[in-house]
Amino acid sequence: MSLIVQKFGGTSVADPERIMNVAKRVGNTYDQGNDVVVILSAMAGVTDNLIGMAQAVAESPDSRELDVLLATGEQTTCALLALNLKSMNYPAQSLMGHQVELMTDHCFGNARILDIKADRVRELLDRRHIVVIAGFQGCDLDGNITTLGRGGSDTSAVAIAAAIKADVCEIFTDVDGIYTADPNICDKARKLDTISYDEMLNMASLGAKVLQIRSVGFAKKYKIPVHVRSSFSEEEGTMVVDENSGMERLAVSSVTHDHNQARITLKKVPDQPGIAAKIFSPIADAGIVVDMIIQNTRAGGETDLTFTVPKNDFQRALELQKKVAADTGAEEVFGDEKIAKISVIGVGMKDHSGVASTMFSTLACENINIMMISTSEIRISCVIEEKYTELAVRVLHTAFGLDKE
Amino acid sequence: MSLIVQKFGGTSVADPERIMNVAKRVGNTYDQGNDVVVILSAMAGVTDNLIGMAQAVAESPDSRELDVLLATGEQTTCALLALNLKSMNYPAQSLMGHQVELMTDHCFGNARILDIKADRVRELLDRRHIVVIAGFQGCDLDGNITTLGRGGSDTSAVAIAAAIKADVCEIFTDVDGIYTADPNICDKARKLDTISYDEMLNMASLGAKVLQIRSVGFAKKYKIPVHVRSSFSEEEGTMVVDENSGMERLAVSSVTHDHNQARITLKKVPDQPGIAAKIFSPIADAGIVVDMIIQNTRAGGETDLTFTVPKNDFQRALELQKKVAADTGAEEVFGDEKIAKISVIGVGMKDHSGVASTMFSTLACENINIMMISTSEIRISCVIEEKYTELAVRVLHTAFGLDKE
Repeated sequence: MSLIVQKFGGTSVADPERIMNVAKRVGNTYDQGNDVVVILSAMAGVTDNLIGMAQAVAESPDSRELDVLLATGEQTTCALLALNLKSMNYPAQSLMGHQVELMTDHCFGNARILDIKADRVRELLDRRHIVVIAGFQGCDLDGNITTLGRGGSDTSAVAIAAAIKADVCEIFTDVDGIYTADPNICDKARKLDTISYDEMLNMASLGAKVLQIRSVGFAKKYKIPVHVRSSFSEEEGTMVVDENSGMERLAVSSVTHDHNQARITLKKVPDQPGIAAKIFSPIADAGIVVDMIIQNTRAGGETDLTFTVPKNDFQRALELQKKVAADTGAEEVFGDEKIAKISVIGVGMKDHSGVASTMFSTLACENINIMMISTSEIRISCVIEEKYTELAVRVLHTAFGLDKE
Repeated sequence: MSLIVQKFGGTSVADPERIMNVAKRVGNTYDQGNDVVVILSAMAGVTDNLIGMAQAVAESPDSRELDVLLATGEQTTCALLALNLKSMNYPAQSLMGHQVELMTDHCFGNARILDIKADRVRELLDRRHIVVIAGFQGCDLDGNITTLGRGGSDTSAVAIAAAIKADVCEIFTDVDGIYTADPNICDKARKLDTISYDEMLNMASLGAKVLQIRSVGFAKKYKIPVHVRSSFSEEEGTMVVDENSGMERLAVSSVTHDHNQARITLKKVPDQPGIAAKIFSPIADAGIVVDMIIQNTRAGGETDLTFTVPKNDFQRALELQKKVAADTGAEEVFGDEKIAKISVIGVGMKDHSGVASTMFSTLACENINIMMISTSEIRISCVIEEKYTELAVRVLHTAFGLDKE
């Protein structure tokens, strides 16, 4: 018998009927003799509605008060689930962030977890209660309500699992696990039985749709096995675990793509100290997040520098660079929105040679030009023309032996 | 400059536009140099919606979890008001029941206030903040969310006013004050400038529409002047104050009526100890509230006993009495739904003689038969046939000199 944390997202609790389904699922887990802690999000759409209400009364809503408002979403679903469980005679009790003593810093809207006391959770579990906890919310040291940012319920779930030393943290979602590639563009994509924390952390685009990246960092730090599974089926999903926990180690475990990038190139930038700072300070001041940065050395004391930004921020970033061109000394500034980043990811990469060359030659075989390359210990990413996205994902998926039979 | 508590009910905060009106009003009070604490209800209709949601997932909703759900209503309006105030650059901060440390007993759904620490309120006021507090909610000694029952926001407001020693507690509502009679049936009814706590306490039906009776008890105990006024106009309303605070002392200050009663008569009940208990125990066990009880002595060791109950409970009460007739020895049990209770109320009654005889003779002049009479120190109530309600209110209003010029 285990101590299990089960987290249900907004679509799983979107209406009373679905909440009753969640209650059945939770009740079954409890009936099997397990101790159960449930973490809930707000009903799908409610958080956006609340933000709309806030904007109706305040042009740029105060972040402390916005958190007070947003926290009502999870409070509602928790109360409803506990009500339904109690009506079925389960000993259930809902707890809000401050009651769990999920302590955070003062950064309203995007608070970081400092500590979780969880005394009440442990005491309720000792009395064989089902504990229903509002995700996404905490409280700062002054007793103010804080929220953890978008998708923060995943982080709540993993952090609470760590605090109470749960055996597993189950994340129920509307997909049934993590795939070797996006099944929408690669019909040979397979569901993975296991994946490592580090692989998840490198799967930004593909993974983030399923599990908030921040929560994976927590899971890795505290070695909490995370089970990503469907709230609409009983099937096993994908276990996110430590890479040393006996999982199969393929060189590459998944192929991901990201359409949401655009690149900006500065041509013939003087190759001297301080230039990079001049280029990226205005970008950072504008709150634009830079993903890849590539600098090629050129002859004659000059260099070309290319970086990528989210597509939404492309025009702003391009104009900023044109404005500071006099400062940076760039001869020409140009950009391209029609790009895609294709990545192959796998912890096995550390032990397998030839992954990069396989990737490059596979793309070359299809006449796909590689514009940029960046690598991490367990990931190789190439920027290519956007129109080749699907083709690139499919041929790489086959080349690395990921196709299902 | 004063310390003012302002309480706004559900219709005053029913939508973002009205919340912005409330913010203007609060801001004006603050701009005049006053310290302001605001107590809010949930948006009109929201509490009923939440109860509906609870009933969709639980046939008889658990009271602890229902309170968690209901508390979201006031949390929402408080956050929105604080957001709007902050967007106008007022230093505002919302606080929930547990943050105010409004401590209650464990009686979920109808909790009694034990203590209000309000340290945070005082500290925020010292820093010239506008403090926006969720009405209706508190927290028990174990940190559970509790609610104070229907209309509990009035009680929150007066209790918090007492805790922080406010100069006045303003209750903003959709009527502009307390009237000498219901203006809908008596067009000569006048708005009262002042009324005493005791008169309000005796005005159950007329007063309760405006101000929760429980809050009046609090106001009386802690001598908090309560100003009942309209949220839609700037006009002064009615001050509810201590009777010794120099207010005008008419013999009668108001005439009230209550349609919502029905009477049950037990004929020829044995006049012996223990009978009353046999009659009223089953009524109490059924949760029915008895208002008036009249017992006439009759010759021959028998008596007639009549009592009134809310109309909604009439059939149940009647059946109960028929069932226990063997026990109580009543010869006959019959009832009447078509009655009304007319009351004249006034602290001046203590010093003025002849109020009762004026009442009886005024009704007699119109050939209105009096079925039952009950009195308190400052109130005389008569039960009459329902069809005479409006007539009785009007002639009594004139007879006691309450008509406006």
